[in-house]
Parts: sequence; C-alpha cells; structure tokens
Amino acid sequence: MLSALPLAGIPEIESGADLGALLVAALAGSGEPPERGSAEGAAAGLQSGDVLVIAHKAVSKAEGRIRRLSEVRVGARARALADEQGKDPRLVQIVLDESRSVVRAAHGVIICETHHGFVCANAGVDASNVPGEDQVVLLPRDPDAAARSLRARLRELTGVAPAVVITDSFGRAWRIGQCDVAIGCAGLAPAEDWRGGTDANGRVLRATLIAIADQLAAIADLARRKDGNQPAVLVRGAGRHVTAQDGPGAVALVRAPAQDLFR
Amino acid sequence: MLSALPLAGIPEIESGADLGALLVAALAGSGEPPERGSAEGAAAGLQSGDVLVIAHKAVSKAEGRIRRLSEVRVGARARALADEQGKDPRLVQIVLDESRSVVRAAHGVIICETHHGFVCANAGVDASNVPGEDQVVLLPRDPDAAARSLRARLRELTGVAPAVVITDSFGRAWRIGQCDVAIGCAGLAPAEDWRGGTDANGRVLRATLIAIADQLAAIADLARRKDGNQPAVLVRGAGRHVTAQDGPGAVALVRAPAQDLFR
Repeated sequence: MLSALPLAGIPEIESGADLGALLVAALAGSGEPPERGSAEGAAAGLQSGDVLVIAHKAVSKAEGRIRRLSEVRVGARARALADEQGKDPRLVQIVLDESRSVVRAAHGVIICETHHGFVCANAGVDASNVPGEDQVVLLPRDPDAAARSLRARLRELTGVAPAVVITDSFGRAWRIGQCDVAIGCAGLAPAEDWRGGTDANGRVLRATLIAIADQLAAIADLARRKDGNQPAVLVRGAGRHVTAQDGPGAVALVRAPAQDLFR
Repeated sequence: MLSALPLAGIPEIESGADLGALLVAALAGSGEPPERGSAEGAAAGLQSGDVLVIAHKAVSKAEGRIRRLSEVRVGARARALADEQGKDPRLVQIVLDESRSVVRAAHGVIICETHHGFVCANAGVDASNVPGEDQVVLLPRDPDAAARSLRARLRELTGVAPAVVITDSFGRAWRIGQCDVAIGCAGLAPAEDWRGGTDANGRVLRATLIAIADQLAAIADLARRKDGNQPAVLVRGAGRHVTAQDGPGAVALVRAPAQDLFR
C-alpha cells in the first residue's frame, strides 16, 4: 500500500525561512480526515522509510530565488526572442539568464536547457504561486544540495531522515500536459534498475530502468490541489527506495546530451 | 489522502480472458495488510470514485495481441534497421508492423510512432512478462476502447463504474528511466486544466495543464513490483477526476504532430 498525504498549514515561504522547521510543524498538525472512508492515520510524525515530496517553489522562495520583472535589463537577444514568441521581454531575459542553451523556440514556447542540465519550458521560471504581479520564481540554485540539506535538517529536528524529493512540473515532447518530476532528491535511489533482472516467469527484463524519483513526484502532485497551498506531501509505503546515504540525487535522471536523440 | 493498493491473485492472462471478472475476484481477495502501520482498509470491493490502473500487458494478452518471433517473415527494411541498430530482425519487423513511422533510430534504440499515435521505444512491443522465449506482446488494438469496455464490464459485475486506466512504461526524451503513462482510459478526465484558473494568491495560473491520467499511471507503477505479477492497482482518493461519462480517453494526451517541436 502506497499513500500520499498533503501537509496542511504551511505558510507562505519567505526568503531565509527554515523550511525543515515549517515541515515538522506541518507534519505534527496534519491529521487530516481521510477522503471518503479510505486510508487513515498516515500523518503525525515521520517514520523511517517516509518520503517528503516538496514543490520546488517552497525551496526557491526560502533560497530567495525570486526576481522582479521591473528590475530586469533586457538585452537584444531576449528582445528578439520575446518578439518572435510573443512573450514579455523581461521574462525572456530571466529565462535566458537561467539557461545554458535554448533547445527549441516555437509556437510561443521556449524550451531551454537550464544551468543544471534540465530540459524544460522557460528554464523553469514561473510566475504562478508567487505573491505580487511583478515577481517570478526561479528553480533552486542546486536542487540536489537543497534536498540533502533539508534532509539533514529534518534528521536534526526529528531524529528521522526521510527521503526528500524536490519537484517541478515539466511538459513532455510527445504528450500533452505536464507531469511533476524530481529536480532534486536525497536519501533515495532515484532509479530502479531491473535490467538483467527477471520477470515473474523468470524471463530477463530488458531496458527496464524505472524513474522512481519522478514517479514519486507525480504521486505528490496528484495528491494535492494546485490552488491549495500544499507544497509538501508525505508519501508512505515507498520505503524500499529510501536509502541511508543521500545518494546520487536527481541529476542522475538527466540524460547526457550525447545520449539525447532529440536535440 | 491518496492511496494505491496492488491487487493480489490475478492469474496469468490467457487470450479471451474475462479481465473484468478476474479483477473483481482479485478485488474481493485483496485485503492486504498495510505496510508499516500506514493506511488501512483500502480494498474489499469497489467504491464510487475509485480508479483501477491496469498494465497494458494484461489487456493485450486478453486480446490475444501476442506474436511469435518464429512466425515472422522479415522484410528488407526490418533487416537493414536491425543490422544498423544491432537488434533481432524478427523483433524489428514486428515493431515496424506496429508503427506508423520511425521517429528516430540510434544508439540501439528505435523510437516509433505507433498506429495509435503514441511515440515510444519499439512501438511498445515488449518481450518481458510474456511466457515463452518466442513470444512478444503488442500494445492493445485500441486501448481507449478496451478501457471503456472493461469499465462497462466492471459496472455490470459490481454495480460500480470505476475509472479505468491502461498503462505502459515510456521513456522520455531528456530524462533517464521510464515512467508509466496512460495509453487508454475511461471514466476519467485525463487532463486537469488550470489555465486561466488562479493560485492561492489569486494570481492567474499560466500553461498549467496537468496530465492526470499519466500521473495515475505513475502511482500505480510505484505501488507494485515489476516481478510481482501485479498488473492491476486500485487507486483511491482521486475521485474528483472520475467522471460518469467515459470521456475522451488517453488519446487526448497525444500531442498532434503539427504541435510537436521534436520530430
């Protein structure tokens, strides 16, 4: 049985916030009644094997990774690209600042490779769920490092070190709509490798490498409402993927450009 | 609270099997003890708002969508492509038979557009979890139709019409590892459209279209083990996405080639 419970009562995150302490407080208060008679009692304290999945915006805000459109100086490249794609030139400048390269720009969409190596729309720069019309939120500086440090803080506060996954919503090349994926993680084996393993018939499984961290991100996203101020979700029942070591992080799920067939 | 419970006791599926009846029997028998004191009582009968997520192989096998490598007549194109990519020419012939086009072939990987319009490796043709070294399993003929018909059968047997999602594991262009996605669904709004909606600060959300059906697929995949003979997973707590009508199906998540920046 796998379960996912959004944590209630997390306030708007300010720059410099102690996210670990806010999560611990929310965990203590999240005895939500279950939906329609389903599973019960999955909150109230961390257990070994738990996974805490956190929307990156909470992390970015705590890091102060916010920029004001009114303070942007727009360069020539941003202006041209903004014209071409019908976007706000100030936003495009910020997107370029966050990007290593522009992978595609068409149909009003700018797909970038971020400095971290993620390929996503607008380099992950987002104007929703940020207070103030003038502000946009960037991706965390180093999401794996942020996950490790949040995990250490949770261990310090509670004695338990859950896996921590930091997420964003990414589009997909050939499918409509976004799914949440892991942009940072700690204490988790981000992929499960069944290559060379066998199926229930003893037959060798081929090319089966499961993106565990991304599927955890998807679960958390489905458990919460986008308008519900629920940046954190407690996932229970995925303990076999939780590791004592912090592990390689979500960067392990980034496909190297040399292996990329679509760039 | 969202929960996902893999159903136990589903036998190897034969061609012509009554999948609905097998699922109902498994539902009745799936009172698994919860993992580590977590959520309880999520099985024993269908409830309104439930989602049944089923790995496509169970559906394909029931449809008899299996081919034997030993019975394939290999054509010149398949032979050339197999040589080039270091693959079994008989398998490549089957992959081509299932494809509308080959999108990319490189590094031993053949990315196809299937006759349904899905872009995925090997047109979804898979040799794992099939009994017999000689057999491969294809995608269902029409996964949305299969989902609708399975839903109708479940309604007939139980009086309850859960949403039905049929899944496969797809790779992603820029990320390593596979995530399960929905290739068919019924009784589900496959995407949730927040475009024009507002966030917790009353600020308009932009470009937020959530691939609900794909995230349900991901949840189910994480809830089961690949070697565990658990093709079906009961997801509870996602009832707000379940619809009385069968709806547009998972085909609604296929990006039209004209909107595709990466082909």
